[in-house]
Amino acid sequence: MYSIKAPQYLKPVTLTMFALLLSGQAIAKDWLVDTPKAYKKALKQVTAGDKIILANGTWRDFEIVFKGKGTKTQPLVLTAQTKGKVILSGQSNLRLAGEYLEVSGLVFKGGYTPSNEVIAFRRNKKELAYHSRVTEVVIDNYSNPDRFESDYWVSLYGRYNRFDHNHLVGKRNKGVTLAVRLNTEESQQNHHQIDHNYFGPRPILGSNGGETLRIGTSHYSLTDSFTVVENNYFDRCDGEVEIISVKSGKNKISNNTFFESRGTLTLRHGNGNLIEGNVFKGNGVDHTGGIRVINRDQTIRNNYLEGLTGYRFGSGFTVMNGVPNSSINRYHQVVNATVENNTFVDVDHVHLAAGSDAERSAAPKSSRFINNIFFNKNGKAPFSIFDDISGISFVGNASNLLKENKIKTGIVVLPLTLKRASNGLLYPTNSEAKNFGISADLVPTAKADTGAPWYAKKEPVVAFNSGKVINVSSGENAIFDAAKMASEGDTLLLSDGEYIENKIVTLDKTLTIKAVNAHKAKVMFERSTLFVIVDNGSLNIDGLTISGRESPDSSGNTLMRTAKWGMLVNYRVQVTNSVIEDLDINHSFHFFDSGNRAFADSIIIKGNIFKSITGDIFRLNKEQDDLGIYNTEYLTVENNTFENVQSAIVSLYRGGKDESTFGPHLKFVNNTVDGSSKSMRNKSGASINVHGTQVSLISKNTFINSAPIVVEHTVGEPITAITRNTFNQTDLPHVVELHAPMPHTADVSHNKHSK
Amino acid sequence: MYSIKAPQYLKPVTLTMFALLLSGQAIAKDWLVDTPKAYKKALKQVTAGDKIILANGTWRDFEIVFKGKGTKTQPLVLTAQTKGKVILSGQSNLRLAGEYLEVSGLVFKGGYTPSNEVIAFRRNKKELAYHSRVTEVVIDNYSNPDRFESDYWVSLYGRYNRFDHNHLVGKRNKGVTLAVRLNTEESQQNHHQIDHNYFGPRPILGSNGGETLRIGTSHYSLTDSFTVVENNYFDRCDGEVEIISVKSGKNKISNNTFFESRGTLTLRHGNGNLIEGNVFKGNGVDHTGGIRVINRDQTIRNNYLEGLTGYRFGSGFTVMNGVPNSSINRYHQVVNATVENNTFVDVDHVHLAAGSDAERSAAPKSSRFINNIFFNKNGKAPFSIFDDISGISFVGNASNLLKENKIKTGIVVLPLTLKRASNGLLYPTNSEAKNFGISADLVPTAKADTGAPWYAKKEPVVAFNSGKVINVSSGENAIFDAAKMASEGDTLLLSDGEYIENKIVTLDKTLTIKAVNAHKAKVMFERSTLFVIVDNGSLNIDGLTISGRESPDSSGNTLMRTAKWGMLVNYRVQVTNSVIEDLDINHSFHFFDSGNRAFADSIIIKGNIFKSITGDIFRLNKEQDDLGIYNTEYLTVENNTFENVQSAIVSLYRGGKDESTFGPHLKFVNNTVDGSSKSMRNKSGASINVHGTQVSLISKNTFINSAPIVVEHTVGEPITAITRNTFNQTDLPHVVELHAPMPHTADVSHNKHSK
Repeated sequence: MYSIKAPQYLKPVTLTMFALLLSGQAIAKDWLVDTPKAYKKALKQVTAGDKIILANGTWRDFEIVFKGKGTKTQPLVLTAQTKGKVILSGQSNLRLAGEYLEVSGLVFKGGYTPSNEVIAFRRNKKELAYHSRVTEVVIDNYSNPDRFESDYWVSLYGRYNRFDHNHLVGKRNKGVTLAVRLNTEESQQNHHQIDHNYFGPRPILGSNGGETLRIGTSHYSLTDSFTVVENNYFDRCDGEVEIISVKSGKNKISNNTFFESRGTLTLRHGNGNLIEGNVFKGNGVDHTGGIRVINRDQTIRNNYLEGLTGYRFGSGFTVMNGVPNSSINRYHQVVNATVENNTFVDVDHVHLAAGSDAERSAAPKSSRFINNIFFNKNGKAPFSIFDDISGISFVGNASNLLKENKIKTGIVVLPLTLKRASNGLLYPTNSEAKNFGISADLVPTAKADTGAPWYAKKEPVVAFNSGKVINVSSGENAIFDAAKMASEGDTLLLSDGEYIENKIVTLDKTLTIKAVNAHKAKVMFERSTLFVIVDNGSLNIDGLTISGRESPDSSGNTLMRTAKWGMLVNYRVQVTNSVIEDLDINHSFHFFDSGNRAFADSIIIKGNIFKSITGDIFRLNKEQDDLGIYNTEYLTVENNTFENVQSAIVSLYRGGKDESTFGPHLKFVNNTVDGSSKSMRNKSGASINVHGTQVSLISKNTFINSAPIVVEHTVGEPITAITRNTFNQTDLPHVVELHAPMPHTADVSHNKHSK
Repeated sequence: MYSIKAPQYLKPVTLTMFALLLSGQAIAKDWLVDTPKAYKKALKQVTAGDKIILANGTWRDFEIVFKGKGTKTQPLVLTAQTKGKVILSGQSNLRLAGEYLEVSGLVFKGGYTPSNEVIAFRRNKKELAYHSRVTEVVIDNYSNPDRFESDYWVSLYGRYNRFDHNHLVGKRNKGVTLAVRLNTEESQQNHHQIDHNYFGPRPILGSNGGETLRIGTSHYSLTDSFTVVENNYFDRCDGEVEIISVKSGKNKISNNTFFESRGTLTLRHGNGNLIEGNVFKGNGVDHTGGIRVINRDQTIRNNYLEGLTGYRFGSGFTVMNGVPNSSINRYHQVVNATVENNTFVDVDHVHLAAGSDAERSAAPKSSRFINNIFFNKNGKAPFSIFDDISGISFVGNASNLLKENKIKTGIVVLPLTLKRASNGLLYPTNSEAKNFGISADLVPTAKADTGAPWYAKKEPVVAFNSGKVINVSSGENAIFDAAKMASEGDTLLLSDGEYIENKIVTLDKTLTIKAVNAHKAKVMFERSTLFVIVDNGSLNIDGLTISGRESPDSSGNTLMRTAKWGMLVNYRVQVTNSVIEDLDINHSFHFFDSGNRAFADSIIIKGNIFKSITGDIFRLNKEQDDLGIYNTEYLTVENNTFENVQSAIVSLYRGGKDESTFGPHLKFVNNTVDGSSKSMRNKSGASINVHGTQVSLISKNTFINSAPIVVEHTVGEPITAITRNTFNQTDLPHVVELHAPMPHTADVSHNKHSK
C-alpha cells in the first residue's frame, strides 16, 4: 500500500488521498482540497493521473491556474467533489496550461471574470494548453455588470483541445461567448473539438459583439483552423446577427441544432469549411436565419432549415457578393461553393449575390445548388437576386409550386407533400422526391443530449401574469408595499380608490399591476418617479389611471423609468387600457425614460389615453457615442390617444454605422395624436423622431395640429413605411438618408393631408 | 407601585418598563423596544411624558412615524438606549407629527431615505409637528447613491420647532441639507430655532442644488418666517455658491461660525432679516465668501469676516442691484440696509451694486455702512462698484491705508495694527479705533460646542502618502495584489522592473503608486483599462512609466477612468514625473476618461511626458443635458510634454446657464504640445477645448504643429487668460461668447505665433 505524510503546511486543510494502483502505471491519487491555498499546494505535488477535487461549496474570488502535465492515458484531472456542487463566484476564473489536462463538474455563477476570459486554454501568451479537455462545466449568467465591458467566457488556445458537454447560458455583456483563438502559430491548425455543449439563451445585446461562437478573426482568416463544432444545441442565441462566425479555414460545423436563434451561421472569412447535418428551427420567430456564405470552397450539405423568417444578411440562406481583390477584412468572392441535399421548409428568404454594391461587385462563381428541396407552404418563392448569378448553377433541385420564382432552371416543381418523420424533421412523401433534400438518417442533436446532465435548462424569462394574484386596497404606499412582497410573475389586483405613493416603486421582478375595474384605481405619486425598473424587473400595467397631480413641483419628473445607468438584464414593459394624465405640474414631466445602456426586449403600449403631459412619452434615445447601442428592440404603440403632449411622443435612436443588429423596430399604428409635440422644449421638433431604426411601420394614425414625423435613415437598408395616416394641420413626414447619397427608401404613401 | 401586564402581542419583544412617579403628574413610562413592530405597539399606548427607547443596534429600513401629543412640561420622547448606538440604516427615515415631541440620540448612516426627506417635521401634508424638538441626532453620509436624485436631509414644517445639537455631514446628493418649509399657512411665522448644530463638510456638488440651509422659497418670499439660526458651525460647507439661502422675512442668523466654506450667506429673498455676530473664517481658501444682500430692511451688524477670497456674487460682502418692479423670483432692490460694526480683515472683495445690467438696473438705496473696519494686509482696497452707489452712505468706517480705494468718504484711514484676542478674532490695538468693527465681547461659536458631544467630527478626505509604505516587486498583477491589500493613504513603492497587469486595478481608497527610481518601474496592462476609480477612491501616480503596448487590440482602451456611472463621492487624481507612452495599439486609446456624473475635486498633472497616444488625454466632458453638471472642479496641468497625441489634450465641458457653481477651473501652464490633436477622430478640432469653464489660465505653453485652443464662454462672467504662449504651425486660439451678444471677454495677449 501507498502512504504519504501530509506536509506541515497542508495540515489545516482537509486533505484525503486515495491510493489507486493501476496495472503497470504510476499510482494515481485524489487530492480533496477546500481552500485556494490547499489547491495550490496540491498542484505542486500532483503527477499524471492524479485528481484534484474541489470540495463542495462556494469558492469566491478563486482564480484557478490549472497547470501541469498529464499523459494520454493518465490525464491530470481537476473536478468537483460532487458535480454541480462546486460554485465559483465573485471574481473567479480558470486558466489551463500544459497538456492532457481535464476539468469537469464546476459551476461559474454569481460573479464575473476579473480577466479577459472565464475559461482560457492558456495561462498567458507563452504557456498554452494542449490535448486538454473541459467537460460538464457550467457558466451561468456570469456576466460583467458593465454591459459594454467586453470579455470572452471561453477562449480556446493551443491545439487538440476538447470542450464538450458544457452549459453556457445568459451572457449579457459584450464579447463572444466562445472564441477559438488563432493569434499565434501554436494555436493554428488546432484540431479542437467543440461538441455536445448547450449554448443556452443569450439575450439581444443591442449592438455588435454578441456572437455565440467565433473561430478565428479576420487577421488569421487565410489560416486553417481544423476546428470541429458538432452536436451542440444553440437555444435562442439572440446576441447579434451572427450566431456562429467562422473566420478561418477547414472547419467542420456539423449536426448542431439551432433553435429559434436570431441570426445566422456565417462563413465570414476562411475557405474550405464544411457545414453538414445541421438543423435550424426558427418556428417563425423574427430574424431567425440559417447560413450565410462568403469565400471559396465552402460545402453546405444535408442541412435542414425550417420556419426561418430572416431577410437580407440574416436570411435562411445567403450567398454574398465579394469585393474584387478584397483586403483581408472585407468580403472575399464566393468561388466553388457546393450547396447540396439541404431541405428548406418555410424559409422566407434565400438571397443570392447579396450585398451587391459598388464595392461588393464580384458575383459568386463556379458554385452550385444540387438536390436541395425548397418547400414554402405559402407558395412564395424565397429567392431574391441582387446581381449576376450565372456563376451559380442549379442542378436537380425540387420545390413545391412557387409564385414568381426567379430561378428558372434546375428546380423541378413537384406536387410535394411533407410529413414529419420520427426525427422531427419533414420529408417529402412523394417517391419521386426521395433523392432531394436531407438524408433519412439525419439525427438532430436534442437539447437533452447537450450540456451537463446534472444542470437544469431553465426558461430565460418569466411571463406576465404567470404567478399568483394579490388583492390590493387603496392607501398610502399600498403599491410599494404589495410590490415588495410579491414574487416573480405575480399580479397586483387593485380595487377601486386612490393610491398615493410617496416612495419609488422599484421593480426587480416581473410584475403586473391591474385594476379590478378599468380606470377606477387612480394612482398618484409624490416622488420624482413612480416606477423604476432595475435588473430582472419587467412591468405590465393594465387599466390604471395614473396622475401626476401630487408629484413634486420641479422639472424632470418621470412616471416610469429604468435605472439611470448600469442595466445588464433586458426588460419588458407593457401598458394597456390605462389613462395617463396631468403630468404637468412643472415642465419636462415625462412618461417613460430609458437609462443610458438600458435595453428593452419589448415595450408594448396599447389602448391607452395620454393627456396633458409637459414632457416626452418615450425617451429611447440615450446613445451618445454612436456605437450602435440602442435602447429597445421593439416599440409597439397601437390604438392610443395622445392629447396635449408638449414634447415628443417617440424618440428612438440607434447610432453608428455598424450593421450587427436587427433592431430597433417601431410599430406605431392606429393612434390619434392631437395638439402635441409643439413645445419649444421639444428639441427635435418632431412628434415621432426616429434615427437609425431598422424597421418603422407608422400607419393608420391621425395627427391633428401636431409636430411632424421625422425619420433619419442611417445604415442597414432600413425598412420604413409611413402609410394610410391622416395629417390635419400637421406637416407631412420628413424622411432623410443620412449616409447614402440617394433619395430616401421609405414607403410614404396613401396618407391624407389637410391644412 | 404601578404595574402593567404586557399584552399578548407584545410578548415576543423585549419590553421593559420603568414606572416613574413624578410629583403631581401622570406616571411617565419608559418603553424599550427592539423591533419596528414593538415600536408601533408602544406608540399606540404612550401618553405625555412617556419615553420610547430604541434598543441599541442597527435598525434597517425602519421608517419611523413618531406621532403623538406631549405637553410643554411632559413631552413625548423618542430616544436611543445609548445615544449613538442606535443606527438607522438602509431605507430608514423619521417623520414627526403632533406636538411637544422630542427625538434624540439616533444616527442615520449606511443608507438613504426612501422618501423626500430623512427627517420631516410632518407626517404628510395634513399632519405637521409643533413645539417639537430634534436634538443630538446624526445624519452621516446618508446620501442617495444617485447624485442627482434630490432629497432634503431635514425639513422643518409647522411652528415652534427646535433643531439643535445635531451633526449633519457628507450630503453628497442634490438637495438642501436643511430646509425650513413655508409652503402652507401652518408653517409660516414659524419661530423655529436652529441652534448648536454641526454642519460638517459638504463636498462640492458640481451643479445647482447644494445649499446647506434654506429658509423658504421664492414663492413665499414676502412671508415672514421668524426662524432663528444661531450658534451653529458650518465646516467647509462647499456644496454650491449659497451656504445659507434666506428666502423669507424676519429671520435672525446670529453667532454662527463659517469655517473655510465656499459660498456665502445669501439674503436672496424676504425682508427685515438680522445677520448678527457671525464669524466667517476663510483662511484664504478659494471662493470663501461672506454675506450677500438683496431686498429691503436687512441689518448686518457685529459680524467678523477674515481671509475671504471670493469675488463677484461670492465676495466677502456683496450688495446687489435689483430689478425694478421685480417679479417674486427675481432680484428685489436693496432698500434700507444697515451694515454696522462689522470687521472685514483680508477680505479680497466687497462688491457694491453688483450684478448691474439691463435687467438689474435698480441700484441700492437708503442704505448705510456705519462703524465698520476694513483691513487688508496687502494694502489693496476691496471695493468694486458696478453702478450708482449714491444710495449707500458710508459713515464713520475705518480702514488701513488702501490703494485705489473708490470709496472716497466715510472711511477714515488709520494706521491700524491688529491683534488677535483670546476669542481668536483680530481687533485694532489703536485706541482711536475702538468704536469700529465688532464688539469686544463677541464669542465665536466653537466647533466643539456644536453637534452631538458623543459623535466625532472626522476629516472628510484622506491625504495622499498619509499611510504606510508597501514595497512592491515587479511581476504579474503585482500592483493589483498590492492595491487590494493596502489601506487608506498607503503608498505602493515599486522597485525597478516590468509590471504586467491582466486585471483592472479598482481603487476604492486613497492610494499612491510611486517608483523607487523614476521611470524604472514600467507598467503594462492587458485589459481595456488599468485603473478604475470608484467611490472613495483617489489616485496619485509618481515616477512611473506606463505603456499601452500589451493592451487589447481594440479601440477605446483607457489607461485610467472613473466608474462609468453612479459615482457619488468626489475623487482626486494626481500624476507627476511619469511617462505615459504607446497608447496606440488601436484607435481612440485614451489616457483619462471621466464617467457621466463623476466629479473630481482636483486633477493635478505635473512634469510628465505623454507620447504616442491615439485618443484623448482628459475627457471631462460627459454632461449631455446642459444642467450645469460638470466633471472636475480643478484641472491643473503644468510642465508636461505632449507629443503625438492624436486627439484632444483637454476636453472640459460645463453646460447650462445656471450660475450656482464656482468651477470648473483650468490651469494649463508651461507645457509643450507637439504634433497633436490633428486626427480626424478629434471631433472638436481643438487641442484644448473648454466650454462653460469659469476660470481658464492657459499660459507659457509651446504649441507646435497642433490643433488650436478653443474656448467657449457661456455664463457667469468667466475669467479666461491665454497669455505668453508660443504657437508654431498652430492656429491662434479661438474664443467665443455663446450667449452674450458682445466681443469675448478673454485676455488673449503676449502670445507668439509663427506659421
